[in-house]
Amino acid sequence: MASSRPGQLMAAEIAEQPEVWRGLIGHARGASSEVAAAAKRIAAHRPRFVIFVARGSSDHAALYGKYLAEIVLKLPCGLASPSTLTAYRARPDLRDVLMVGISQSGSSPDLVESLEVAHGCGALTIALTNRPDSPLDQAADLSIDIQAGPELAVAATKSYTAQLLTLYLLLDRINGGAGAETAELPDLANALLSRGREIAEVAQRYRFAQRLVTTGRGYSYPTAREAALKLMETSYMSAQAFSGADLMHGPLAVIDPQVPVLAVVNSGIGGSAMQDVLHRLAEQDADVFCVGTPAAVAASTVGIELPAQVPEALSPLLEILPFQQLARHLAIARGGDPDSPRGLQKVTETR
Amino acid sequence: MASSRPGQLMAAEIAEQPEVWRGLIGHARGASSEVAAAAKRIAAHRPRFVIFVARGSSDHAALYGKYLAEIVLKLPCGLASPSTLTAYRARPDLRDVLMVGISQSGSSPDLVESLEVAHGCGALTIALTNRPDSPLDQAADLSIDIQAGPELAVAATKSYTAQLLTLYLLLDRINGGAGAETAELPDLANALLSRGREIAEVAQRYRFAQRLVTTGRGYSYPTAREAALKLMETSYMSAQAFSGADLMHGPLAVIDPQVPVLAVVNSGIGGSAMQDVLHRLAEQDADVFCVGTPAAVAASTVGIELPAQVPEALSPLLEILPFQQLARHLAIARGGDPDSPRGLQKVTETR
Repeated sequence: MASSRPGQLMAAEIAEQPEVWRGLIGHARGASSEVAAAAKRIAAHRPRFVIFVARGSSDHAALYGKYLAEIVLKLPCGLASPSTLTAYRARPDLRDVLMVGISQSGSSPDLVESLEVAHGCGALTIALTNRPDSPLDQAADLSIDIQAGPELAVAATKSYTAQLLTLYLLLDRINGGAGAETAELPDLANALLSRGREIAEVAQRYRFAQRLVTTGRGYSYPTAREAALKLMETSYMSAQAFSGADLMHGPLAVIDPQVPVLAVVNSGIGGSAMQDVLHRLAEQDADVFCVGTPAAVAASTVGIELPAQVPEALSPLLEILPFQQLARHLAIARGGDPDSPRGLQKVTETR
Repeated sequence: MASSRPGQLMAAEIAEQPEVWRGLIGHARGASSEVAAAAKRIAAHRPRFVIFVARGSSDHAALYGKYLAEIVLKLPCGLASPSTLTAYRARPDLRDVLMVGISQSGSSPDLVESLEVAHGCGALTIALTNRPDSPLDQAADLSIDIQAGPELAVAATKSYTAQLLTLYLLLDRINGGAGAETAELPDLANALLSRGREIAEVAQRYRFAQRLVTTGRGYSYPTAREAALKLMETSYMSAQAFSGADLMHGPLAVIDPQVPVLAVVNSGIGGSAMQDVLHRLAEQDADVFCVGTPAAVAASTVGIELPAQVPEALSPLLEILPFQQLARHLAIARGGDPDSPRGLQKVTETR
C-alpha cells in the first residue's frame, strides 16, 4: 500500500500504540488468554535458562526480555546467534531451556529453523508474532499473538512496543502477577505522544547531522538500540547505540561537539547508572538530547521528560515513543519517506 | 609511557602478535599449564550453560567464545549484561553455569562484582586476564594468564588476539584436543602482517570518510565488531558493525556510495553465508573493502586475501590483523595518535 504523504503510515502506526496496548492489557487479564496459557505451560516446565532469538527491532525487544527474565524471573539468559543452530548446525543440549522467538512477520527462515532445531534439542519453544499461524508460530510449542494489527510502514513501531508489553505481561504472569502495573500506560503514552510538536523542533536541530550516538543503561539500553535502528532505517544517519558502560570503554573517543548524543535516562537503577556517563559527556561538550527524568533533561542540551510514576521495567514502552517521532520527522526533513526507506522491504528473510 | 612517534606503540604491539601466539601455543601444550588445569576443572564440573562477561574489545573476544562454545562444546551460551547482577542485584540460580570473565586489565569493578555474585549464585567462574593476580583473577575460581605482555597503547591489539587464542586452546582442551591446528598460525600472521604497505594505501582511500559499516557472519562477526571499535577508538570514525544477517534487517538503508563497507568473508560457513550480503551491497553500488577469500576479494572494490589453509574457528585471529593496521594508518593520516586517543584511558573502570 502506498501512502499519500511521506510518513503518513508511520504516523498512524505510532499514534495507534496506546490503543494497541489497551487491547493487550485487557486481553492478558483473562484466565484463558494466550498469555495466561503460555505462562502456565512455562511455569510447569520450570526452565533453567532462557534464550531469545530475533532480528532487527524484534532483537531489541529480545534484549528487553533478557533484562526482564534475568531480573524478574531470576534466570540466566542469552540472545541466540541464530547461525550457530542453522548455518553451523550446532546441536546443543537444550533440555531445561526456554527459547523465545520474536518476529513481527514470523516468517524469517533462520528464526523458524532455530525454533525447530531448539525443539529437537529438548527446548520448550514459544513464538511471539504479529501474524497468528505464521511459520514461526507453527514451528513453536506455544505462541502468542502480539495483536498490534497490520503494520504497513517498513520501520516497526507499534509491533515493537506490543512485543515489549507482551513480554512484560507474560513474565509478570509467570511470576503470579496480572499486569496491574500496566494500567496507566496507555494514558501516559497519549500524553507523551501529544508533545510531537516539540519533537519536530528537535528534528530541525539534527537536520544536518550525519552521525550520532544513542546510549542508555539497563532496561533503557534496548531503547537506545531501537532508537538508533529507527534513525538508520528512516533517516539514513549513522546512529550507533552503546550501553552507557560500553560507551566509556572506547567509543567515547568518537564524541565531539559534531556528534550529538541521544541519551535515555529512566527514573530507576539504569538511569542512576547513567550519571557518570552524563558527566563525561558534559566534560566533552557533547550535544545531548535526553529522554528521561526532569533532572537529566535539565542537565542536557534539549530533552523530553518522562512521566515520573512508571516502574522502571515498563519505562522502555514510553521511552521509545519520542524517538519514533524523531525518526519520522527527521526522515521527512531530510527528504525521505519513512514509510518506505530505500533498500528495505517490510519482511526481511535471512538464512 | 609517551611514544616518540604517533602510533609507535600500537605498531610494536601489532607486530608482536605472532610471538605472543607462539608462546601461548607452546605453553598450553604442557600438561600442567593453566589452560590444561582449567580445562580439567571445567570438564569435571560439566556445565550446562556458559555465560561470558566482558567490556570493550574483550567483549568481542567473548562473542567469539560464544560461537566456539556453542559450536564446539555444544552448550547454550549467553553474554551477560553485567548490570543485572550488579546494579539490579539479580540473584539467578547459576548452578551448572560456567561464567567466563575476560578483561585485559582485570580491574573493572563491574566485572569483578559480576564474577563474585555468580560464584555466590553457584556458578564456576574463570578469569582470562593479561595481569595475573588482578582483582578479576582473585575473584574467580580459576584463572588463565593470556600472556600478551604489557600492553601500553590504549587500543587493544595483542591482548585481543591472545584472548581469542586462549579461548580456543581452552575449549579445544576441554574437548580433548591439544591445539594441534594452531601450529601454523604465527607464520601465517607474519605473512599477513608483512602486507602493511597495501593497508597503508587502503587507509588513503578512506582518509576522508566520516562513517563506515563493518560486517561479517558467524565466527567472523566478532572480527567486524572489533574492527569497528578499533576505527572508532583511534580514528574517531562512526564505524558500525552488523552481522551480515542483521544488516539486511534495516541498517542496509544507511549504505550508499558515500558509506564504505568493510566486510570479513572467511573460507568457511560464515563466509558462505555472506554471499547474499555481498550481492545486495553490489546492487547498492557500495564501496567494499574485503578481508577474505580470493573470490570475495575479487568481487570487492579493494581487499586483502586471507590464507586458505586455516580452520574457520581460527580465522578470526588472522582476520583482525589488517583492520588493526588500517585503524593505525587511518588515525595517523587523519592527524591523530592511535597510541593515546582523545577521551580514553587504557584501563576503563565502570560500575
